[in-house]
Amino acid sequence: MKDFVNVGLLGAGTVGGGVLKVLEKNAEKIAKEVGKPVRITKVLDRHVDRLKQEYGDKYIFTDNADEVLEDKDIDIIVELLGREHPAKEFIARAFANGKHVVTANKDVLAKFGAELFPLAHEHNCDFMFEASVCGGIPIIGPLKTSMAANQITSIMGIVNGTTNYMLSKMANEHLDYDEVLKEAQAKGYAESDPTADVGGLDAARKIVILASIAFNTRFNLDDVQVEGIESIEACDIKYATDLGYAVKLLAIAKNDPENGVSLRVNPTMIPLSHPLAGVNGVYNAVFVNGDAIGEAMFLGLGAGRLPTASSVCGDIIDIARNMQHQSTGRISCTCFEEKRLCPPDKMSAPAYIRLQVADKPGALAAIAAAFGAQNVSLRNVVQTNDVKSNKTEIVVITHSVSEANLQMALQILRVLPVVEAISCVIRVEDSHLA
Amino acid sequence: MKDFVNVGLLGAGTVGGGVLKVLEKNAEKIAKEVGKPVRITKVLDRHVDRLKQEYGDKYIFTDNADEVLEDKDIDIIVELLGREHPAKEFIARAFANGKHVVTANKDVLAKFGAELFPLAHEHNCDFMFEASVCGGIPIIGPLKTSMAANQITSIMGIVNGTTNYMLSKMANEHLDYDEVLKEAQAKGYAESDPTADVGGLDAARKIVILASIAFNTRFNLDDVQVEGIESIEACDIKYATDLGYAVKLLAIAKNDPENGVSLRVNPTMIPLSHPLAGVNGVYNAVFVNGDAIGEAMFLGLGAGRLPTASSVCGDIIDIARNMQHQSTGRISCTCFEEKRLCPPDKMSAPAYIRLQVADKPGALAAIAAAFGAQNVSLRNVVQTNDVKSNKTEIVVITHSVSEANLQMALQILRVLPVVEAISCVIRVEDSHLA
Ligand SMILES: NC(=O)c1ccc[n+]([C@@H]2O[C@H](COP(=O)([O-])OP(=O)(O)OC[C@H]3O[C@@H](n4cnc5c(N)ncnc54)[C@H](OP(=O)(O)O)[C@@H]3O)[C@@H](O)[C@H]2O)c1
Ligand SMILES: NC(=O)c1ccc[n+]([C@@H]2O[C@H](COP(=O)([O-])OP(=O)(O)OC[C@H]3O[C@@H](n4cnc5c(N)ncnc54)[C@H](OP(=O)(O)O)[C@@H]3O)[C@@H](O)[C@H]2O)c1
Repeated sequence: MKDFVNVGLLGAGTVGGGVLKVLEKNAEKIAKEVGKPVRITKVLDRHVDRLKQEYGDKYIFTDNADEVLEDKDIDIIVELLGREHPAKEFIARAFANGKHVVTANKDVLAKFGAELFPLAHEHNCDFMFEASVCGGIPIIGPLKTSMAANQITSIMGIVNGTTNYMLSKMANEHLDYDEVLKEAQAKGYAESDPTADVGGLDAARKIVILASIAFNTRFNLDDVQVEGIESIEACDIKYATDLGYAVKLLAIAKNDPENGVSLRVNPTMIPLSHPLAGVNGVYNAVFVNGDAIGEAMFLGLGAGRLPTASSVCGDIIDIARNMQHQSTGRISCTCFEEKRLCPPDKMSAPAYIRLQVADKPGALAAIAAAFGAQNVSLRNVVQTNDVKSNKTEIVVITHSVSEANLQMALQILRVLPVVEAISCVIRVEDSHLA
Repeated sequence: MKDFVNVGLLGAGTVGGGVLKVLEKNAEKIAKEVGKPVRITKVLDRHVDRLKQEYGDKYIFTDNADEVLEDKDIDIIVELLGREHPAKEFIARAFANGKHVVTANKDVLAKFGAELFPLAHEHNCDFMFEASVCGGIPIIGPLKTSMAANQITSIMGIVNGTTNYMLSKMANEHLDYDEVLKEAQAKGYAESDPTADVGGLDAARKIVILASIAFNTRFNLDDVQVEGIESIEACDIKYATDLGYAVKLLAIAKNDPENGVSLRVNPTMIPLSHPLAGVNGVYNAVFVNGDAIGEAMFLGLGAGRLPTASSVCGDIIDIARNMQHQSTGRISCTCFEEKRLCPPDKMSAPAYIRLQVADKPGALAAIAAAFGAQNVSLRNVVQTNDVKSNKTEIVVITHSVSEANLQMALQILRVLPVVEAISCVIRVEDSHLA
């Protein structure tokens, strides 16, 4: 047996740099955890010169992937390049060469998981990815082990830091979407092209990964109904607060025994008393319901150099322990079922709808009738009139309504003469703590 | 190889009954998780007749421990008897017979861990105990794996449901301690002898277990400074709220590189914005700080039939996987260090102190001087006078103060002529989310 567990690192950027730091700083502890020292031997990165300057000759830096992927002494490949390609090809080659893989790459997992997991299995390699969802938060590990005896019924997560920062700011400082986005970009919390974050795609990738583990079924990005936060205005958050709700971009996976699994990302109103409602700023949290555990929530930092490195290094330790005990592939195939998907129009939840209406007698009655005609009953109705602008606004929260009926009602409302615009639609989740 | 993983259950009470239910209901899923079906074959319990009536002949019930502990076909013993004896002796015998053990018994772990863990190791047996701290919440597992690359700096937990229920009730309904205790007893949330809960002993046992894992050092019950919630009055919670704090019974473990590890259980004021402040009722939560992960919190149900069974069954699955891969003892020795303890008088934190004083000019000045003489500086001071009772009360929050200086200041205050009584002292934790 070798004296070291040897790790090859692909990508020494934000997270890769954190992994170098954690493995060095806590080397002694990690060696005791594993029973053998764990070290990074080679690092692939474009920026060889800069890295040599920073780290000296502690590691071998190279811009040639072959040097790492074909190195027979390397046991574990840690992929932290980002993006789909060549990350996916490098991971596949690692498995082909009998190397275990740790990644934080949700893009690759959500898109190529179906191809890569069987490959790992075929070569009896471990494939771990705790950092790919909610950076530092341990959630994949607990789902695979501590909660493994449960039938998971639902997962609701605040899994995107950018949008949570923006919505928190809008709520606390009564700012508008555009203002907050600009500030988030200035502070580096939002990218110059924020589409993937504010549009919900980033969260969708993460719920694909979580749901695949939780429901033991391989899901794809196409299975997720995605809506972003672009149409949320400060006034929606104000109405929500007045009605006892917070507005969060939630990634939701539910397993309804009757209709199947629904996966969606959308701005969601949750009761202020719900533990997710208090998760603000750059924090992430995942709220899990299971048939035995009841309710549990995992909260922490969803991104950042060291938190994300914490998860990556936890995976490295887990694999290294497997190597020590010849038990790699110990938790191999989590997707051993094929749960069916719920048809999108069968998903149901209460909905918040904000409408601009003509200030005419009977406006409210016409709107209420339109809802009634689609069997949508209303739980809350607020009508306000802004004297200055002479704008009349009606806000309703419906009882639980199927997506089909909701869309039909919205269609009818849109052509109703008294309705000037449907400004915002937000799903409501009322599932409470006991 | 056998076709089943065979489990012997000791104790079919609240949690044991839950384990029977979960293993039966989710048998198919668990078999796929493990790669082999897991079944309970024999059950030790005093109430054989009642159990036979309830379960028929699905399991072999016995009131003779030998029948289970000496059964060569049994691989895993699940100890859910409660209390120290004979649980401890049964666990020791299980190891001697080469059986793995799962327990939820914090009493045994906190008192006999130092004896039992080496025994498990000696016989290459797994010893797991996720359910012993915070029932359903996955916290031991994540500490041992996902967070294993961290140096943990602190753990703060709401780990006792009874006291959290009581303090939440006192806060929300402005009720007094005695009233709330009676109600909790009536509802079955507090035992008829509530001493271990309200006095902090139950929480102390749990922090011993958590700290032993987090700091890789075997701690004992004697290492914990324990204070209960008995002296908290409704008015303390009211003052705390006004000053921006919640009052919680926290179990706290800190590793201060300079002074060592401090373990304590005491009522604690935490900022209302802290995630632990919103954890109410029978919910438990553990807040962890680590040098890489930053901050993370684990929330859920701290007790109850099914949540606790969820953790027990997660441990069973973990061991069964090890059996499948001949990797038992995979995470064997977590206590590979000997971190030293912080002398109690060196622990430091801000403190809240409520005093009854004589309504005389100069009272406040005399009190402020007494604090000053012990180098205790004050951050907040509130003086109130209840006209009806003509009682004058002074509430102060100090800056961070060593336990030694605090106790000295309290001693001086006690003999100060203007001080009629020191009604309440509560530690303050200001550690914030970023
Ligand atoms: N940052 C976080 O907080 C966080 C949190 C959770 C998950 N993640 C995931 O972790 C992964 C890494 O993220 P990161 O923020 O560390 O990215 P990053 O800072 O951009 O680091 C990636 C590094 O790899 C280099 N690189 C990329 N492709 C390469 C190639 N083909 N050959 C050689 N070098 C290459 C990059 O160079 P160039 O910059 O020149 O391309 C850069 O130095 C991503 O999958 C991300 O989604 C990140
Ligand atoms: N309940 C929870 O929510 C919870 C949560 C976390 C951890 N735990 C821990 O889980 C363990 C079990 O708790 P529990 O609430 O399930 O206890 P329980 O309801 O009292 O169940 C224990 C069962 O074992 C029987 N028993 C005890 N000693 C025995 C002996 N020597 N021989 C034969 N039968 C014996 C008991 O009979 P008798 O009743 O006649 O003694 C009872 O039927 C405890 O260590 C507890 O601290 C419980």
